[in-house]
Amino acid sequence: MNLRIPGPTPLPPEVQAALSRQMIGHRSKACADIVAEATPSLQEMFGTKADMLILTASGTGAMEAAVANFLSPGDEVLVVSVGKFGERFGKIARTYGANVTQLDFTYGQAADPQAIASALAANPHYKAVFVTHNETSTGVTNDLSAIGEIVGRYPALLIVDSVSGASALPLEMDRWGLDVVVSGAQKGWMIPPGLAFIAVNERAWAAHATATMPRFYFDLSAARKSAAKNQTPYTPAVGLLFGLQEALRLMRKEGFAQVLDRHRRLGERTRAGVKKLGLRLFADEAHASNSVTAVRAPEGVNAEEIRARLLADYDILVAGGQGELKGHIFRIGHLGWVSEKDIDEVLQALSEIL
Amino acid sequence: MNLRIPGPTPLPPEVQAALSRQMIGHRSKACADIVAEATPSLQEMFGTKADMLILTASGTGAMEAAVANFLSPGDEVLVVSVGKFGERFGKIARTYGANVTQLDFTYGQAADPQAIASALAANPHYKAVFVTHNETSTGVTNDLSAIGEIVGRYPALLIVDSVSGASALPLEMDRWGLDVVVSGAQKGWMIPPGLAFIAVNERAWAAHATATMPRFYFDLSAARKSAAKNQTPYTPAVGLLFGLQEALRLMRKEGFAQVLDRHRRLGERTRAGVKKLGLRLFADEAHASNSVTAVRAPEGVNAEEIRARLLADYDILVAGGQGELKGHIFRIGHLGWVSEKDIDEVLQALSEIL
Repeated sequence: MNLRIPGPTPLPPEVQAALSRQMIGHRSKACADIVAEATPSLQEMFGTKADMLILTASGTGAMEAAVANFLSPGDEVLVVSVGKFGERFGKIARTYGANVTQLDFTYGQAADPQAIASALAANPHYKAVFVTHNETSTGVTNDLSAIGEIVGRYPALLIVDSVSGASALPLEMDRWGLDVVVSGAQKGWMIPPGLAFIAVNERAWAAHATATMPRFYFDLSAARKSAAKNQTPYTPAVGLLFGLQEALRLMRKEGFAQVLDRHRRLGERTRAGVKKLGLRLFADEAHASNSVTAVRAPEGVNAEEIRARLLADYDILVAGGQGELKGHIFRIGHLGWVSEKDIDEVLQALSEIL
Repeated sequence: MNLRIPGPTPLPPEVQAALSRQMIGHRSKACADIVAEATPSLQEMFGTKADMLILTASGTGAMEAAVANFLSPGDEVLVVSVGKFGERFGKIARTYGANVTQLDFTYGQAADPQAIASALAANPHYKAVFVTHNETSTGVTNDLSAIGEIVGRYPALLIVDSVSGASALPLEMDRWGLDVVVSGAQKGWMIPPGLAFIAVNERAWAAHATATMPRFYFDLSAARKSAAKNQTPYTPAVGLLFGLQEALRLMRKEGFAQVLDRHRRLGERTRAGVKKLGLRLFADEAHASNSVTAVRAPEGVNAEEIRARLLADYDILVAGGQGELKGHIFRIGHLGWVSEKDIDEVLQALSEIL
């Protein structure tokens, strides 16, 4: 199958082999050695020297950690949303009792840094601003550099969901002034779902010290204490750590800059190919994602029919629209272990179907 | 290596092969088919017809779900603790604002059902009673049947940590009157850590409906809604589902009753062998666990030295004592994919070391 959804993404054979390794003790030196080897690579891909913590959960678990560890009930926060995953940050924050102001942008558009600036000018006391790096539901990448510059003028923490961004798209956590960043294994990282990564800088730790939202499994103080020994407080997904080690080695071999460049080229190739077929991109092309492309179904055609044909006749799985976008768009994932050939196959199949 | 810790446990070759399978879409029919196949087997091993939900987390995450989904801050609960994992239930409940009364039994002893009866008689209004089925830190199995009978006279929910119990020890959730039971993949289930299972009966769902502790990633309403479609609300650990399917097939082939009987025999064999070497069991033998055996180090010997020798000279990894038990005991895991030969190797090595 040509698995072209924006995660889980296909596994390189070396990662598949690593995943089948026999179990080891989670408190063993062998396990700590993997964490010790992986941590600097994760930090490099995040563009940070901040603490890097590994959680056993999917990306949403790490998003919850990014809320509950840094806030107290009643805290005013600004959630910048450009799609389903921005909305999810808002839901999590409300669930934990934050006082949420949500700045929603039209699906397909990126967040406007000036609108964020106005929201912060209107209320400079937000404790945190939540932003999605790469909105998987619409194929939009937000301009974190510009947003970081604006939020940096205020005391608010800048907390970023880069679940489908990190390792596929440029990310400069430290340079852009991001305080907390989360990512998920099954995206650009080329391993199966079940691990998430969260980077936490000193400003965020200071907020953590007084934050009273409850957390236990996702408590990052415990994770930080264990990380000092290259461990985790609770049994980690050991098999996925084997996969992570191998995937990071592959990425290092290709070169981290080359990995990002490959994603850029494949994003451009996908968008150019889709447009050449006469299809319309869903996302504002100035902010189109290089890890996932959302495509509008042609007038009068249900996107789900296109997906069904791609699957039945070509063994290609693309993602559908989520929520109210279902039937209106389909989404081509091009992140992780992906090549020109994978994309050309999808474009060829689409041209035959249309 | 002879991996004789009480989890992660060794993987059968069929499970190893399954873990290396290529990724599939987490919303695909193929993925739902796995959940549909696994669910009745999980229910059978739990002894229940209640809802069975699959979480991507280690056991502690499922324990947190078992607290936050059924209680509100301020609720009075009784935590019955016979070791580190009982204490963990208490910590989680306190973290989420429960008003915890903790009934601690001496390490190595089982919970006394009569003491639980007295605690309930003194305060019949507890919203929940938390009990550990199999206390991994001390090698003790509590008498859930007797405890269930007593708690059943009161309105309290009976919430059980069977992380290292289910699939290795007899468990009759419905017959014993247990309302919520959690287990973890890397124990008797023979797959790597990263999946947890939680069974929830109708009494517990009724409590859930009014429980206000915050939860999002672990929200069981969302999990239940998705489970009706054999899905999960957030991306599950797809690779571990492949492993689970294969492990349950192996268990079904052996026979679920035979799996439990094998654990009983291996527990007895371990205890008899340890005693024959002149070593003392840590747990009250009347309640000794058939999934893990805790052994006291001989007078004047540090248990960590024994562990180090077993590892260095015999490639056998046993677990140490946790917290204040460190140095005083070591623990031999005999759950999951384990045979007489695995145990005899440990006993032989111990006899040579002593």
